[in-house]
Amino acid sequence: MLSKEDNELITNTDPDTPMGELFRRYWVPVLLTEELPSKDCPPVEITVLGEELVAFRDSEGEIGLIDAYCPHRTAKLFWGRNEECGLRCVYHGWKFDRNGNCVDLPTEPSESNFVHKVKIKSYATQEIGGVIWAYMGPRDQMSELPKLEWTLVPDSHRFMMKMQVDCNYLQSMEGDIDSSHSAFLHSNLKGEIESGGSIMFKRETMRKYSFRDMAPRFFVKDTDYGLAIGARRGADEENYYWRITQWMMPTYSLIPKEPGATYQCNMRIPIDNHNHWFFRVVWNPDRPLSSEELWDYKHGGNVFPELIPGTFKAKANKSNQYMIDRSVQRSLTYTGIKGIPVQDQACTESMGTIANRTKERLGTSDTAIIQARRRLMSAAKQLLQGDRPYSAYHSDAYFIRSTVLELPKDIPFDEGAKELMQAKYSG
Amino acid sequence: MLSKEDNELITNTDPDTPMGELFRRYWVPVLLTEELPSKDCPPVEITVLGEELVAFRDSEGEIGLIDAYCPHRTAKLFWGRNEECGLRCVYHGWKFDRNGNCVDLPTEPSESNFVHKVKIKSYATQEIGGVIWAYMGPRDQMSELPKLEWTLVPDSHRFMMKMQVDCNYLQSMEGDIDSSHSAFLHSNLKGEIESGGSIMFKRETMRKYSFRDMAPRFFVKDTDYGLAIGARRGADEENYYWRITQWMMPTYSLIPKEPGATYQCNMRIPIDNHNHWFFRVVWNPDRPLSSEELWDYKHGGNVFPELIPGTFKAKANKSNQYMIDRSVQRSLTYTGIKGIPVQDQACTESMGTIANRTKERLGTSDTAIIQARRRLMSAAKQLLQGDRPYSAYHSDAYFIRSTVLELPKDIPFDEGAKELMQAKYSG
Amino acid sequence: MLSKEDNELITNTDPDTPMGELFRRYWVPVLLTEELPSKDCPPVEITVLGEELVAFRDSEGEIGLIDAYCPHRTAKLFWGRNEECGLRCVYHGWKFDRNGNCVDLPTEPSESNFVHKVKIKSYATQEIGGVIWAYMGPRDQMSELPKLEWTLVPDSHRFMMKMQVDCNYLQSMEGDIDSSHSAFLHSNLKGEIESGGSIMFKRETMRKYSFRDMAPRFFVKDTDYGLAIGARRGADEENYYWRITQWMMPTYSLIPKEPGATYQCNMRIPIDNHNHWFFRVVWNPDRPLSSEELWDYKHGGNVFPELIPGTFKAKANKSNQYMIDRSVQRSLTYTGIKGIPVQDQACTESMGTIANRTKERLGTSDTAIIQARRRLMSAAKQLLQGDRPYSAYHSDAYFIRSTVLELPKDIPFDEGAKELMQAKYSG
Repeated sequence: MLSKEDNELITNTDPDTPMGELFRRYWVPVLLTEELPSKDCPPVEITVLGEELVAFRDSEGEIGLIDAYCPHRTAKLFWGRNEECGLRCVYHGWKFDRNGNCVDLPTEPSESNFVHKVKIKSYATQEIGGVIWAYMGPRDQMSELPKLEWTLVPDSHRFMMKMQVDCNYLQSMEGDIDSSHSAFLHSNLKGEIESGGSIMFKRETMRKYSFRDMAPRFFVKDTDYGLAIGARRGADEENYYWRITQWMMPTYSLIPKEPGATYQCNMRIPIDNHNHWFFRVVWNPDRPLSSEELWDYKHGGNVFPELIPGTFKAKANKSNQYMIDRSVQRSLTYTGIKGIPVQDQACTESMGTIANRTKERLGTSDTAIIQARRRLMSAAKQLLQGDRPYSAYHSDAYFIRSTVLELPKDIPFDEGAKELMQAKYSG
Repeated sequence: MLSKEDNELITNTDPDTPMGELFRRYWVPVLLTEELPSKDCPPVEITVLGEELVAFRDSEGEIGLIDAYCPHRTAKLFWGRNEECGLRCVYHGWKFDRNGNCVDLPTEPSESNFVHKVKIKSYATQEIGGVIWAYMGPRDQMSELPKLEWTLVPDSHRFMMKMQVDCNYLQSMEGDIDSSHSAFLHSNLKGEIESGGSIMFKRETMRKYSFRDMAPRFFVKDTDYGLAIGARRGADEENYYWRITQWMMPTYSLIPKEPGATYQCNMRIPIDNHNHWFFRVVWNPDRPLSSEELWDYKHGGNVFPELIPGTFKAKANKSNQYMIDRSVQRSLTYTGIKGIPVQDQACTESMGTIANRTKERLGTSDTAIIQARRRLMSAAKQLLQGDRPYSAYHSDAYFIRSTVLELPKDIPFDEGAKELMQAKYSG
Repeated sequence: MLSKEDNELITNTDPDTPMGELFRRYWVPVLLTEELPSKDCPPVEITVLGEELVAFRDSEGEIGLIDAYCPHRTAKLFWGRNEECGLRCVYHGWKFDRNGNCVDLPTEPSESNFVHKVKIKSYATQEIGGVIWAYMGPRDQMSELPKLEWTLVPDSHRFMMKMQVDCNYLQSMEGDIDSSHSAFLHSNLKGEIESGGSIMFKRETMRKYSFRDMAPRFFVKDTDYGLAIGARRGADEENYYWRITQWMMPTYSLIPKEPGATYQCNMRIPIDNHNHWFFRVVWNPDRPLSSEELWDYKHGGNVFPELIPGTFKAKANKSNQYMIDRSVQRSLTYTGIKGIPVQDQACTESMGTIANRTKERLGTSDTAIIQARRRLMSAAKQLLQGDRPYSAYHSDAYFIRSTVLELPKDIPFDEGAKELMQAKYSG
């Protein structure tokens, strides 16, 4: 449970809010590379952290991420022409380069010096791992791009999708680090996780442990990057079965996967306080994704949903009750809703666009959620005092993997899994 | 005319408002039985009096009417599985019975006692007359289900429909007790009421009196149940022609019908302050409804509108200007809009979702409306003082019928019609 | 740049605001004559200056423009029957004539005098030039209908269209008097204005001057009607090339046209503060419009957009990104959007429904805009002091034309163009 004040603090990432300032110290994914596929291609409108922006790839292939509005008479630059290293407003031809400098101002007399006085907001970007990242904080405090393993592997080893979710980032992020819901929300009635083959994890293992022990104990360790979350279930007389999730500041997480598996990373980026972008990435550090995996990701609907063409909205969404099929719910799956991300979305969007945490009743299975909230709020408050967040400025902290393993009962999970939790990819 | 304050008082039925408290002392219809057709069928979302709820029929056939949101992390229980006498949230498997008790909490350790501490809001229900009724007031002040004749007759003697109306309950309820508008809004240009045959009332009688005397005198008598409203027109030298409408607390009414006719009851139940459910019931206490009547109710469009399949919205609605046909208005009917309920809806929804009663100009034909408002506001204020509303606790008061008759000029209508205004059905 | 306060002052035309009072001193176009084509035809709902109204043509062919709501119980008179010199509410038959008098009140006893006490808001109207005009100010201060040349010519000499624009009137009106944007927003990539033939102006001339001199100097003269705006470009050693736009109080403008051309007038009428009606009129004082011109106006899409049938909304609108074609933008035209009014709408609507003028950066090309704002705000403030606006009460001031001409460098444009700026039509 959160007080009304804390719920507002943690969910509000607009400019000049404590949480907004914290988020702006991190590099955040804002677009897929494929959304700006070539030099001088059409610009893209994007709202991030409550700020309306326009992105374009200029004639040198570099990304501009600038204010959505022309400063002259506030028409949208989205209508603009992307030409010769700048975006030119179609209204009066004012032109801005990727750094927000006005580089042409044809409606003023050429002897005027006005052009040099006009500059608009622009943000630094980097492009890696199929994603365009932005740093939206103070220029003199620029942080480091997180060294996430999936950003380093070849494109063939990775698949990703971006989806719009119509609720605040936090309630969805909480679902990402909430290991206990899979055995319900994502299961079928035979006690298996519906994951379209062996992609998510080995069904046998899950059948063996998770469903025998629906109420795992959660152990949460503070780390440089955020939290290591161990869900412990009984295995046999001498061992525990551990599934380890990592939560990385501010909103990234790794889903538990056995060593050698294809891994999965979730990222939640606020559009505004009532909507967010969900980036889901799967990657295999050791090999290209197989054609079976890719078919499942693109057509199976389980790990990634079907999107409405030309949009980043799932076909199954709130307006059609997520295409729930009550007869399937009765006879086959727990929800009657198809696919893990859509099942998640049905739950988290049903909480309202900002969940009312003054009414919740948390249990022991919510330990990680409680701790992640504490970390976020504490980091935001510390930043107000001038202490910048460690993880934002230490990209190596993000070079990690999730894992699943058995350990003798007397070994703490973070000690026993230390080696497995290190990312290994070396190019 | 009402003051701004009184208009807010009488139209606001949210929790913890004076009018909200008054409504919560009455049993109110919330769903049709057919919406929860069988044991363990899919649950139904419903908002009543501003409260978001979910209804389900459990494995014993009993109705649960509980909070829409799981208390754990506030996901909607509507996605839940209806199984073994309880609704189970799909997010983490928490399960609630029809009384709001948490009966299973699988994500917590079995030795935990947490399950016994979790309970959610639930309301008492009863099922009679094809309708599920709810009592949403204080448990220790539970009132009586109104003894409405139509709830007692066999299903074959009754037909009903539920419709969503996009305005506050009050302005539509005012239309139900406003006898004077029929001769305009519901008439054709020959001076007849468009009612699809003789179902609404005898055209001959109406032609004889109503259109000859467009401005009847209204006489309103306070009763146990609410008001008896007599609309008096001249008949001949010695007699008056009376059409008697009853208004029953809080929002029910009986449309004037001649003895032996098929009767009609209207009920208005706030969804929130800007929308309400309209339940319209017709019944004949003496015989099953005829196939001609049923055909007319289901297909005629006059007494009941055509609904958009799968919804409770009329096909002719605000978004399509109620399918008004101006050439029909010119040559055939008063409005060019088809069907009595749609004609009513066009008028009442056009007032805005809450009519601005500070601007109205009431006349003598509005006597019943003025008196019904007084009764509601006075009962709400008395309840604040601790005086509970008589009618809510005296169900026999509702065992009445409307009527139409001629009476000698010197006989008051409530005296002359006393016997006819009693319901008679005895099973 | 405007202060927040001034931006609110100038954009808010609701009743009882300074700008609302100023606008109400002018006759404003509210409907096309063709919207009320015949006696007793269906009424039309219309919101003007934030007031909800209903318009009807009565049995004598006269226009009524009265309150949208029946004063009885506030149902909309739009559902009403237009019959025998009055609009009759379908709810209870109350009937109002074009002056807002209640002329029949059938639900009250005939001996009642109530009917004479009931009167609703009505506004004076005049019909000329294919347009219904209204005066919405104080009756005892009635002003004069502006003597615009196009209102006087035969119907054959004139074409017009009315469009709904989803933003405040001001930002669109500013576009009308902003000569410098045509060379960008409305041009093709060869440096020509896309105007579907020679209708807008002679391409040769424009090619000669405008594109050679993208940054004309603006000279603005205060006049009785508003402003004469001269855009000066270099022509040759001894001459300047002038394009003269007139802005007429409160929101009308004439687009620069060479003598003898088909002229163009734009008018912006607030619906409310977030939407306005755009009336665009073309006329030739000397001859009927040619079939080529009419074809272009009706089907060309350049001067007038294609409308969604049965509405006044352009087919290309915000919901479909104004049908922008990025490949056309790359290879053919500046915007990839078809047609001048749609190009304008894309820009002005993108500013938000009320442009945030606290953020704009005006240049020398915005001189006319700055001056028009000053005139409007100053006139509104003077009216608060009791000084009524000169132009509203001097209709002859509007008998003007725009022009395009060359002048020796030492002749001020308003002097050199004086004769050409006079309208000439004499019937």
